[in-house]
Amino acid sequence: MLEGIDTPALLLDVEKLGRNCERMRSRVHAEGVVLRPHVKTAKSVEVAQCALGSPAGPITVSTLREAEYFFDHGFRDILYAVGMVPAKVGRLAALTKRGARVSAIVDSTEAAQGLVGASNKEGVRVPTLVEIDSDGHRGGIAPTDGELFEVAKILGDSLAGVMTHAGDSYNCTSVEAIRAVAERERKAVVTSVMALRSRGHPSPVVSVGSTPTATFAESFAGVTEVRTGVYMFHDLVMAGLGVCAIDDIAISVLASVIGHQHDKGWIITDAGWMALSRDRGTQKQAVDQGYGLVCDVAGRPIGDFIVVEANQEHGIVARRGGGPVGFDRFPIGSLLRILPNHACAMAAQHAEYHVLRQGRAAETWERFGGW
Amino acid sequence: MLEGIDTPALLLDVEKLGRNCERMRSRVHAEGVVLRPHVKTAKSVEVAQCALGSPAGPITVSTLREAEYFFDHGFRDILYAVGMVPAKVGRLAALTKRGARVSAIVDSTEAAQGLVGASNKEGVRVPTLVEIDSDGHRGGIAPTDGELFEVAKILGDSLAGVMTHAGDSYNCTSVEAIRAVAERERKAVVTSVMALRSRGHPSPVVSVGSTPTATFAESFAGVTEVRTGVYMFHDLVMAGLGVCAIDDIAISVLASVIGHQHDKGWIITDAGWMALSRDRGTQKQAVDQGYGLVCDVAGRPIGDFIVVEANQEHGIVARRGGGPVGFDRFPIGSLLRILPNHACAMAAQHAEYHVLRQGRAAETWERFGGW
Repeated sequence: MLEGIDTPALLLDVEKLGRNCERMRSRVHAEGVVLRPHVKTAKSVEVAQCALGSPAGPITVSTLREAEYFFDHGFRDILYAVGMVPAKVGRLAALTKRGARVSAIVDSTEAAQGLVGASNKEGVRVPTLVEIDSDGHRGGIAPTDGELFEVAKILGDSLAGVMTHAGDSYNCTSVEAIRAVAERERKAVVTSVMALRSRGHPSPVVSVGSTPTATFAESFAGVTEVRTGVYMFHDLVMAGLGVCAIDDIAISVLASVIGHQHDKGWIITDAGWMALSRDRGTQKQAVDQGYGLVCDVAGRPIGDFIVVEANQEHGIVARRGGGPVGFDRFPIGSLLRILPNHACAMAAQHAEYHVLRQGRAAETWERFGGW
Repeated sequence: MLEGIDTPALLLDVEKLGRNCERMRSRVHAEGVVLRPHVKTAKSVEVAQCALGSPAGPITVSTLREAEYFFDHGFRDILYAVGMVPAKVGRLAALTKRGARVSAIVDSTEAAQGLVGASNKEGVRVPTLVEIDSDGHRGGIAPTDGELFEVAKILGDSLAGVMTHAGDSYNCTSVEAIRAVAERERKAVVTSVMALRSRGHPSPVVSVGSTPTATFAESFAGVTEVRTGVYMFHDLVMAGLGVCAIDDIAISVLASVIGHQHDKGWIITDAGWMALSRDRGTQKQAVDQGYGLVCDVAGRPIGDFIVVEANQEHGIVARRGGGPVGFDRFPIGSLLRILPNHACAMAAQHAEYHVLRQGRAAETWERFGGW
């Protein structure tokens, strides 16, 4: 079935992808909220179309290359959700002049001044969201910080609203904790935007997003859009958080068994960190999945086998915590599938998806990279 | 000087590259040994030519794609140094029929039988080295294991010699320890090959290699070739081992400052793990460099600033162990350079090298990926 594919290779189960996308889209749309999927996870037109359930629609990007690539494939409503710097305004303005609506984000007066200055020079108006810090995870202005109003003043008519990313949700250890983070995420942006509106700034957009909070938030009151990406594929980190089941994970790396170390209980494969990525996102979770959970060629986990170590083009597979292997089941040249700790990181190591339909290799989908 | 380069971007200091290459080539050639550089680190024709000091020569590869790409660029003597499986023999045979000399490795009777069967079917003879396990790091047959002779018998005329990789040298904590690993590496292959020769197997090739052992080995007696790759670029792991100085590191990622978190002492940049890789190779060393050591735009380390956290397209820079930042030195849009924990992993995240000559951006060199 998969014997014609050269290993290592990235597989995408299109039925699982479809179910994951449909579930999130239904949930968000049922709340009357826009779903603006983050295309950084998949970097694939076909996957983004599956997420939207249509040939195009609003998307979130993390690089200007993503913005350019998706615009060239018919996507016009694009949020570049990484802090803007003046040197990047030229490429953004070029897209705007070609008919795109590319929004930017800033989280300081300095960045706002830089953006306004550079976009005036380019002769474009860049709709801009102010990034709010809802959880101390990375960037953003605290919801009650006076700098928010100074930034709004600098942006003037370009101010389009507020956004935040509850990245801390990845470190939760229970669904209750994720719900609390989601509510804090919502409150942070709603508090900020209400303050802006009360001072005469229209600020129509109120944007939140992370796969865990989008999945478990109990309220989207006041929120106008949700940005999320990992849910399309899901991964072992999400399964560890209770956000998905292992069986929901839509991507895996196909690997060949290339050696055995009988004394050590090791199966050597040709899927090292180049194919799997170096992501160890489950290391801090209750179940550490090493560099990935090992499945048979049909995608079913084989007991408790994980990738315990990864070199560039070698993976070492063993039982979690040691134990007998039964090497006869894994002859040289036989195929395994490895589930990812982190879907974004595993997918980033590959230039194409081998699409599986009902378990059989169908077409390939392009995946691009770079900046 | 570097202002015209869109960030994040991979920089290559061509003078440092040249010095690193010249140093290793002189050392190995002075011992009368063949240098067969490992092209997996750079995946660049120009870098391989620099390593060899000539337009082509013997190389080591870790993927069939590397073999094909380098053959298409004039390299004919290629060792594929990852355990061979029957399904890969077709692509290898195609190269052989086009005039390449591609050697393979095996480390079991099962793999040897698979290779001989598949190459007979293809009508080619594949020169094959037996992989010896010199340090329990990954694959290979123990030097004194009787399976060695069974493998030799199966390979027959295809047996070309033995090889090993002292991967454990990366875990050393002193130069003395590396010297000991190097001597164990040498002894493992020399013991094996002498045993093979005494039983009538010519076995001319005796191949060793890792950047630490190649740098510090006190003897290459009995060794015919050295395979090594990281030394071309060097990295923080090598510096931590004492194999190079920080100033020898030839690659870095150029990043833009995109934000400040004053309360936390964080500088946010646009170089996350997508640009830096997730490699945390210095985590176990005496000095943990986080996701990379931070330099100014000229490549000089800025005190003790490191990348303390990395998201996909965001890096968080802070003082090691905290402390005041002096944000005025790092305005929004200013440029930094990040040195890699692991050169192979950082380079793998990029499709081109921005080549610096005397600190100024010159041409770009292509870097390929995939399998």
